[in-house]
Amino acid sequence: MNNKGLLVIISGPSGAGKGTVVSELIKNKSYALSTSITTRQAREGEIDGIHYFFRGTEEFKKMVEKNELLEYAEFCGNYYGTPMFYVEEQLQQGKNVILEIEVQGALQVKERYKEAILIFLTPPNISELRSRLENRATETLEKINMRMKRAREEIKLIDKYDYIVINKIVEEAVDSINKIVESEKMSAQRHIDLINTFLEGVE
Amino acid sequence: MNNKGLLVIISGPSGAGKGTVVSELIKNKSYALSTSITTRQAREGEIDGIHYFFRGTEEFKKMVEKNELLEYAEFCGNYYGTPMFYVEEQLQQGKNVILEIEVQGALQVKERYKEAILIFLTPPNISELRSRLENRATETLEKINMRMKRAREEIKLIDKYDYIVINKIVEEAVDSINKIVESEKMSAQRHIDLINTFLEGVE
Repeated sequence: MNNKGLLVIISGPSGAGKGTVVSELIKNKSYALSTSITTRQAREGEIDGIHYFFRGTEEFKKMVEKNELLEYAEFCGNYYGTPMFYVEEQLQQGKNVILEIEVQGALQVKERYKEAILIFLTPPNISELRSRLENRATETLEKINMRMKRAREEIKLIDKYDYIVINKIVEEAVDSINKIVESEKMSAQRHIDLINTFLEGVE
Repeated sequence: MNNKGLLVIISGPSGAGKGTVVSELIKNKSYALSTSITTRQAREGEIDGIHYFFRGTEEFKKMVEKNELLEYAEFCGNYYGTPMFYVEEQLQQGKNVILEIEVQGALQVKERYKEAILIFLTPPNISELRSRLENRATETLEKINMRMKRAREEIKLIDKYDYIVINKIVEEAVDSINKIVESEKMSAQRHIDLINTFLEGVE
């Protein structure tokens, strides 16, 4: 079979538990987390190539021009993006690359890289989402309302996704994502090479 | 979530081990085997509605005209077909209906019922296929050559399938099919209703 890894995009409203699910997933050695490139200054303890690839604004803009980023965005005056080279390198090594990213970025990536699997991770229901956000002691009410508004916008894009995983119990959500990845690896579309081998074998 | 079952079509060359895989699969109570309708005489011990639905040729032809069969074929002067009513009934009860069928029939069903999952079950390689057929003491060389020719024709249609499952070890093939079914149940396309509920919830 084709041993190239899959690009797995995990997205969904904040409060859906993406961080927890992703950190569980990558305990499995067949997964690798995508590393972003940023123009912001490295903070203490942050290592280039591990936490981020730290690059200058000029270089970043050149990568954008040359189409070398799967997606990018500006945030507080700094640029952040997903470099194609790193993702491609991991995929070639047979790793499934996980990209945890907000919805707009996820759709950008899918546009650029059609083979990516888009997974929408969601809490069991919307009231649950609010209560999860409220339980984060650090959030102000204003911030919660802002996040809820954003969640509404994001959920409207749900039909652009390939899969919906309901995160009720973390272990089950992780198990579901594993099943999706294993199932996708058996997809006929991903095995044009295998099909060709078969066809040569029977001619 | 949507609790309707999925129609799972298992096809592939003879010698791929379809029968063994299917009989293992249906030990799981979430699966039901599709029952065919036929115009041939019931043999001793065959029960109407269990082994087949036995119907007259007139009635069968009417069902064809009314588009009530997912597929049908003639074999040795008798008609065989897959009645929609039975499949639909099982799906509504939440059962995943398995249809073990030859390739041409499988493609007919997919044409009629787009939501069906088409799984191509194949031996690990073509030489293996020949040796499996040769190990069936009952087969003449002529029959083996005929089956190999047919396998070649069938493999040429493999790109019409959704998934390819390589049947090296039966338990693993069964496990793979289970994963495909569970994964498909999380497909966003199958959850238009869930998406609508979400959207209503956030409006």
